Amino acid sequence: MKVGLIGLGKMGLNLGKNLLDNKHQVSAFDLNPAAVSEMKEYGADGTTSLTELVQSLETPRVLWIMVPHNVVDSVIGEMAPLLAKGDIVIEAGNSHYKESIRRYNELQEFGVHFMDVGTSGGMAGARNGACYMIGGDQAAWDVVEPIFRDTAVENGYFYAGAAGSGHFLKMVHNGIEYGMMAAIGEGFEVLEKSEFDYDYEKVAKVWNNGSVIRSWLMELTENAFSKDANLDEIKGIMHSSGEGKWTVETALDLQAATPVIAMSLLMRYRSLENDTFTGKVVAALRNEFGGHAVEKK
Amino acid sequence: MKVGLIGLGKMGLNLGKNLLDNKHQVSAFDLNPAAVSEMKEYGADGTTSLTELVQSLETPRVLWIMVPHNVVDSVIGEMAPLLAKGDIVIEAGNSHYKESIRRYNELQEFGVHFMDVGTSGGMAGARNGACYMIGGDQAAWDVVEPIFRDTAVENGYFYAGAAGSGHFLKMVHNGIEYGMMAAIGEGFEVLEKSEFDYDYEKVAKVWNNGSVIRSWLMELTENAFSKDANLDEIKGIMHSSGEGKWTVETALDLQAATPVIAMSLLMRYRSLENDTFTGKVVAALRNEFGGHAVEKK
Amino acid sequence: MKVGLIGLGKMGLNLGKNLLDNKHQVSAFDLNPAAVSEMKEYGADGTTSLTELVQSLETPRVLWIMVPHNVVDSVIGEMAPLLAKGDIVIEAGNSHYKESIRRYNELQEFGVHFMDVGTSGGMAGARNGACYMIGGDQAAWDVVEPIFRDTAVENGYFYAGAAGSGHFLKMVHNGIEYGMMAAIGEGFEVLEKSEFDYDYEKVAKVWNNGSVIRSWLMELTENAFSKDANLDEIKGIMHSSGEGKWTVETALDLQAATPVIAMSLLMRYRSLENDTFTGKVVAALRNEFGGHAVEKK
Amino acid sequence: MKVGLIGLGKMGLNLGKNLLDNKHQVSAFDLNPAAVSEMKEYGADGTTSLTELVQSLETPRVLWIMVPHNVVDSVIGEMAPLLAKGDIVIEAGNSHYKESIRRYNELQEFGVHFMDVGTSGGMAGARNGACYMIGGDQAAWDVVEPIFRDTAVENGYFYAGAAGSGHFLKMVHNGIEYGMMAAIGEGFEVLEKSEFDYDYEKVAKVWNNGSVIRSWLMELTENAFSKDANLDEIKGIMHSSGEGKWTVETALDLQAATPVIAMSLLMRYRSLENDTFTGKVVAALRNEFGGHAVEKK
Repeated sequence: MKVGLIGLGKMGLNLGKNLLDNKHQVSAFDLNPAAVSEMKEYGADGTTSLTELVQSLETPRVLWIMVPHNVVDSVIGEMAPLLAKGDIVIEAGNSHYKESIRRYNELQEFGVHFMDVGTSGGMAGARNGACYMIGGDQAAWDVVEPIFRDTAVENGYFYAGAAGSGHFLKMVHNGIEYGMMAAIGEGFEVLEKSEFDYDYEKVAKVWNNGSVIRSWLMELTENAFSKDANLDEIKGIMHSSGEGKWTVETALDLQAATPVIAMSLLMRYRSLENDTFTGKVVAALRNEFGGHAVEKK
Repeated sequence: MKVGLIGLGKMGLNLGKNLLDNKHQVSAFDLNPAAVSEMKEYGADGTTSLTELVQSLETPRVLWIMVPHNVVDSVIGEMAPLLAKGDIVIEAGNSHYKESIRRYNELQEFGVHFMDVGTSGGMAGARNGACYMIGGDQAAWDVVEPIFRDTAVENGYFYAGAAGSGHFLKMVHNGIEYGMMAAIGEGFEVLEKSEFDYDYEKVAKVWNNGSVIRSWLMELTENAFSKDANLDEIKGIMHSSGEGKWTVETALDLQAATPVIAMSLLMRYRSLENDTFTGKVVAALRNEFGGHAVEKK
Repeated sequence: MKVGLIGLGKMGLNLGKNLLDNKHQVSAFDLNPAAVSEMKEYGADGTTSLTELVQSLETPRVLWIMVPHNVVDSVIGEMAPLLAKGDIVIEAGNSHYKESIRRYNELQEFGVHFMDVGTSGGMAGARNGACYMIGGDQAAWDVVEPIFRDTAVENGYFYAGAAGSGHFLKMVHNGIEYGMMAAIGEGFEVLEKSEFDYDYEKVAKVWNNGSVIRSWLMELTENAFSKDANLDEIKGIMHSSGEGKWTVETALDLQAATPVIAMSLLMRYRSLENDTFTGKVVAALRNEFGGHAVEKK
Repeated sequence: MKVGLIGLGKMGLNLGKNLLDNKHQVSAFDLNPAAVSEMKEYGADGTTSLTELVQSLETPRVLWIMVPHNVVDSVIGEMAPLLAKGDIVIEAGNSHYKESIRRYNELQEFGVHFMDVGTSGGMAGARNGACYMIGGDQAAWDVVEPIFRDTAVENGYFYAGAAGSGHFLKMVHNGIEYGMMAAIGEGFEVLEKSEFDYDYEKVAKVWNNGSVIRSWLMELTENAFSKDANLDEIKGIMHSSGEGKWTVETALDLQAATPVIAMSLLMRYRSLENDTFTGKVVAALRNEFGGHAVEKK
């Protein structure tokens, strides 16, 4: 199948190579000429003009957008006037599912199919076998299934149906991921504060072999400790890129009690600060009623 | 009534004066001669010998222990051989209720009554009117009620009955206190991070006048902000002295879901650290699967 | 001052009487004739026509809206064409602060002042002395301050300034309220599960007299137990009306770690359910790996 | 190697067969003759007399205890007088690590080695390849390593060293497990409450193929949904058997902030109840201050 690939960042480049490895044709676009060159050297067509890309493809087109979620609308906006009825737009970044539903509806007015695809597995997955969660029209799905089947790991794609359902699944996937990662982190923190002197790499290794908590995240934990035995070189600052927050916000809207995912998110925010105003207020109160000393700056 | 007052720290001295103000007689002990002198100047008898104190009192004695919880056993151990059947030992510090039940049983074998008393209200309360939660024998309570009634604020004492029930109530009181303080602190943290530029003292003041959350803790919050408008001078390090932890441990034993009190405690522990091992593990994992940058030390 | 009072529900009626008690004139509107009659009997003018109300007032008008937050926009929409430059619209319900900022900006285009007012203290407060948190233009504030001063408890009003700042404060106030209530509830749950047999009304009473956690909420707790000693007659279903959720959502937007307020909200949601899907999944997993029995429906 | 296997419950029987499959000799004890018979049919020696078992083995003995943690002390107490210097006692159940340190010290006085072993992987692991976390003396470890190597999955055993360090690791392993399971459960609860109609088995399946959260627990989730597509047949009551609680208690002792593990535990407790006293108090308070209706029983 011929795929118009829009966005050649870390994920897009790896995906493009994955498609080519699997005998699909790739026509790629990025504003960055170096990325386009790299893609072309691997066997794709390429251009730094989005208009040119779209116009070069025969209809019905298959356009795969792999860009940061905050530029998806501008990409679609630029493409929209050029699209023809029956074209299929795949958006495989980390967009909010409500945005995807809106985009689906907007493109539907033009007769264009919009598919929202959550992609998991990181860069290595994009390159060698990703995991896809997919929403959008059945008619479009019947056309594009081969490119997902071929670039996913075995059984690593799931067409869930309704518009938005792919990005919703990916959002919840990331919420679970936040909780799992925090659970692992907390466990090692208990080890670290304990009276015992563990070799954390070996701990992660044994937990990856036969234990109930064996998992890819534990394998990554093992890798991380193999490089820096006590993680002495890094700070425990936990950034986040949105999906965990969206999961909690969605849970609040659905009145779903998700304390574990919520706490994993709040502790990320807590890690961004050296000190907290909450702490100051509580310390001041303890001083007020009990004369407990506060620590001065 | 004549009271043998053991321990003249911040709480003991204030209580002694409170007793004297209310026409009770006080015979006081402390190892610190300066504290004994201060108490004597206010009208008490005093000694730096615990043995002398006990021997000087006529039976049935009323002995009020007001010492740190980690020295209660040594005080009782030193007194025990000197006590007579019918004596009443009041322990009004922050002891674990299970310790109080143990002490009750130990002294019961000597025919000595043991009363466990949780005291709230801080130093000002001890001086001018405290709040007491009291467990122990009814027969002893009938004897000592006047000294509690006279040194408490109006309606500020409650005889709960069974041995340990006083310290249990005080423990739970402190657990609630942890949760309330954290709620107040979090609220001000949201204000502090908001787009608005509030005068926190005035906020606390309006919340103390007619609002649902008016409370003594909010009054103390107002006081604290009146002294340091943005709490710039103090660190948000939240120490703890045990009762909150006991509350959570007890809740676990009772299988009671107490997430608010538990989180208020865990955030105190979190505030003791500049960085966390949990954070390091999570940051390392984000780097492993997503190539997200870690912050180096 | 003459006040056009829009909305004669529980809060509006009490406020109208409060205004009249304090020598202000009230011209009231509600769709419900019975409420209008009650207000007129107490000394107000009244009408069931919003248009008539607005047209009957001389400019610059002072219009106080006291309606459910979901009908505020329709009320303002109906009034807007009738308003004159310099009119002052006070919205004293529980609106989201972002809505208030939007309304402020919309009315500003007409030269109309919009004031967002958070009101605390419940019905009794509206009747006898409320607590107000107020945002909006200084020029408008200078005009309307007397009606707030007169209907609030002493020191029970605070003009915070910027548009939205009043409803923001009220939102956070309610967030703190959620946390405090949960802390109190959890404390009594620990008592209830304990080996001791407490009289909860007496516990609440002693905690209201001299203790660190004395508060209006604890007084209400005492009231509640005085009517139903063990709360046997009611279910522990905790509904919510939005402000707690808004507080948590705002905290997420501000990356403020507010675990106590967040957990108090999530436990409310949990209380709406008899069973949870989370629980089913965990129970099924325990069965899968450990052969632990599940409970069948 | 010849192993005296004490306890032929689900885990012990599977382990015994595993040992025999791997060419070790097993001399087994259980009070239940049927279990002993089953073990003997598979090739072991067996007896219903613990004394007989111990006396039948040549010194230095290797005794593997696989019994519920609450009977470990009685087993050891019965064996102790029969043991000889140099014997090795392996305790591979779910004991608290502090109990294991105590037992280590007690047996050390007799010159007997005590090894604390956390075993993960469930019944299938015990049968076909378990995961072991091991504490105890190096000298004993050098003797018994072959039986762990042979009955574990590849790389599925870790000798951590100090007495108690094996059971400590297992405890923390289970704490992580609690957090991971809750994260998975909460994720599916969000799906279940969402506007989408997912096939949960297929969701779990795609998440097991290439996603970041692929894990054995997610495989078990897939299994569970394959048997009961919406878990309609089971209740969401989450029992617990101690290790999660121990993890949280240990975290409190170490002042380690572990909110995710703590909340996963508290939600298990919450699931044991139909209604809560916390909820009753909060509902009553909402009624008191705001007139919000309570739900009557």
